[in-house]
Amino acid sequence: VTVVAFTDEIADKGQYPHYMLKEIHEQPETLSRTLSHYLDPIEMRVDMPDGLDFAAIDRVIIVACGTAYYAGMVAKYMFEQIAGLAVDIDIASEFRYRDPVLSPKSLMIVVSQSGETADTLAALRYAKSFNLKTAALVNVMTSTMAREADIALPIKAGPEIGVASTKAFTSQTCALATLAVGAAFARGHIDADTAAAHCRDLATLPQRVVEALLCSDDIAQVAATLIDAKSIFFLGRGPMVPIALEGALKLKEISYIHAEGYAAGELKHGPIALIETGTPVIIIAPDDALFEKTVSNLQEVAARGARIILLTDAKGADAAKGLSKTIVTLPTATPLCAPIIQAIGQQLLAYHTAVTLGTDVDQPRNLAKSVTVE
Amino acid sequence: VTVVAFTDEIADKGQYPHYMLKEIHEQPETLSRTLSHYLDPIEMRVDMPDGLDFAAIDRVIIVACGTAYYAGMVAKYMFEQIAGLAVDIDIASEFRYRDPVLSPKSLMIVVSQSGETADTLAALRYAKSFNLKTAALVNVMTSTMAREADIALPIKAGPEIGVASTKAFTSQTCALATLAVGAAFARGHIDADTAAAHCRDLATLPQRVVEALLCSDDIAQVAATLIDAKSIFFLGRGPMVPIALEGALKLKEISYIHAEGYAAGELKHGPIALIETGTPVIIIAPDDALFEKTVSNLQEVAARGARIILLTDAKGADAAKGLSKTIVTLPTATPLCAPIIQAIGQQLLAYHTAVTLGTDVDQPRNLAKSVTVE
Repeated sequence: VTVVAFTDEIADKGQYPHYMLKEIHEQPETLSRTLSHYLDPIEMRVDMPDGLDFAAIDRVIIVACGTAYYAGMVAKYMFEQIAGLAVDIDIASEFRYRDPVLSPKSLMIVVSQSGETADTLAALRYAKSFNLKTAALVNVMTSTMAREADIALPIKAGPEIGVASTKAFTSQTCALATLAVGAAFARGHIDADTAAAHCRDLATLPQRVVEALLCSDDIAQVAATLIDAKSIFFLGRGPMVPIALEGALKLKEISYIHAEGYAAGELKHGPIALIETGTPVIIIAPDDALFEKTVSNLQEVAARGARIILLTDAKGADAAKGLSKTIVTLPTATPLCAPIIQAIGQQLLAYHTAVTLGTDVDQPRNLAKSVTVE
Repeated sequence: VTVVAFTDEIADKGQYPHYMLKEIHEQPETLSRTLSHYLDPIEMRVDMPDGLDFAAIDRVIIVACGTAYYAGMVAKYMFEQIAGLAVDIDIASEFRYRDPVLSPKSLMIVVSQSGETADTLAALRYAKSFNLKTAALVNVMTSTMAREADIALPIKAGPEIGVASTKAFTSQTCALATLAVGAAFARGHIDADTAAAHCRDLATLPQRVVEALLCSDDIAQVAATLIDAKSIFFLGRGPMVPIALEGALKLKEISYIHAEGYAAGELKHGPIALIETGTPVIIIAPDDALFEKTVSNLQEVAARGARIILLTDAKGADAAKGLSKTIVTLPTATPLCAPIIQAIGQQLLAYHTAVTLGTDVDQPRNLAKSVTVE
């Protein structure tokens, strides 16, 4: 029996030494599945799930824990910018105890890979007790959340074995991006042509992810320089704030290095005191509307001796030449796709750092895959 | 001239070796001034500032940076729980760039000690450009924000010299607490008797702060045990989440130890991987509705070998006996006052740790008192 189990495990990992790396490399395929579920590839429009009427609501409340919470944070930027629809986002363990003031016309979306996360499930039940419309974005469609929410939304990522979530995070973010486009159109905030353009853009995501994965060796070289770091900071602006938080969380989870993510503009309000000569600072800044602002934060920390590692795209790499010795050039992407592309850079950075340190990548200490206690 | 300046400085610090310690000890007086401004001591009601009509708005938006942002986070809990009024809170450097969806009936409150913080000022101007009603809660009433906002709200803390904010934070929180009570009454969410009870409760704050300051020696002993720590975590739930974040920020700013604050329920979704034998975990848990939940998080980290330091009140100390070797018993306080009482514990912890380490407490490296660049 042991032998069979062992063989199964090898088979499951395929050519990869860890489930996490396998799952990172599955993302072109898992994201294709997510997109196939939410987009109509002929009409290039969002196939809005039954019962989900974004024109009938005045606010979205996204509640989740850990990595899924950061997917929700990315979605907040998307819903607000593309659909003009306000989003409240909350940590599940806080939401249910803080007496939130709920508009009866709100839609609550809970996000959980397993669909069983105890705090998130309790938050879902809390919202239902106030008769809010609820949707559960989950990977496991037989889960309790999928059953109990008014609408069950799959992410189609397939089983995720690695405790540190990778493909589930990108599929959660991708599904929410399609819903933001659908909401924008349903609310008359964008016309059919603009919606189709967003859909065509999202449809290019799997190919961009293939290209992002080609950066793995470059990122492994960067990771090798991080293993002695006591502290690492991750900075971004706008939708790259949650990516910075997620990058820091991923590194914490599997390498046990104390990494912390920050909105780049907040660093000078205190945390910059921690920067000393050689402190690694990971800056996530594709060339977007906030690029110049992030670069000025880069210069602030560089002036205090930080060792800058910039994750950007080709145009950003060109503009930042001379400002950072270490630049990782990920594929160019639009605002809808860039958070996912940059998240893949973060996954590879955490993975290679942990492997170099020799930690148990798939089963990090103290962590469980699905947190079914409060 | 040098001699005179030196004499002045000694005079200013009074008996204290640092401005920060002087300002910590001024808080019974500064909070009395804040309360005198916002409360009518005879009628025991909130003296609502001219032009501030909480019955005419549907939402509060609080925008700030750094420590002032955490005062706003505390206020979010208060406005929602006491006044049933929804609060959005945002970091100033993020707010203005994320195309926030703004209800025209919102009141925007910016919070800034100096009234000159560049990002916060830009956020104020952004809100004004959308014709939102605006208020500026500031310490310096001649500042740009006080001039430009529709309503200038003083905190009355007096000049703050220490770069790490202490008395300004507690006066910001206290002023916002009085406004939450005033808003609750103005909106008919509580009756005059309940409002008066809240006012009487707030009026006891200065005396409770006197008692909190008596914990200074106990806290100094705890601080002495932290100086070799590589990483320290601060945990709380509900209104103690922002106090945990603020406690971690204060320690970062002046001791340069990598401290990080977390919602206690989030730790098991990743960061708990960093906990190893002896990692100090500061748990902020007065005996309130969330106490039992926080204690269960305490047990989770204790089981992973963390060295627990519990800041609580008498009832919490009694209940947690045996769960933590190190307990600091701060004065008992109601939900409106407890965040301020617990914040004072955090200030003393950061101060004594930094003094033991010999850092420049009043002028920490890399930091400026007022951040007038973006």
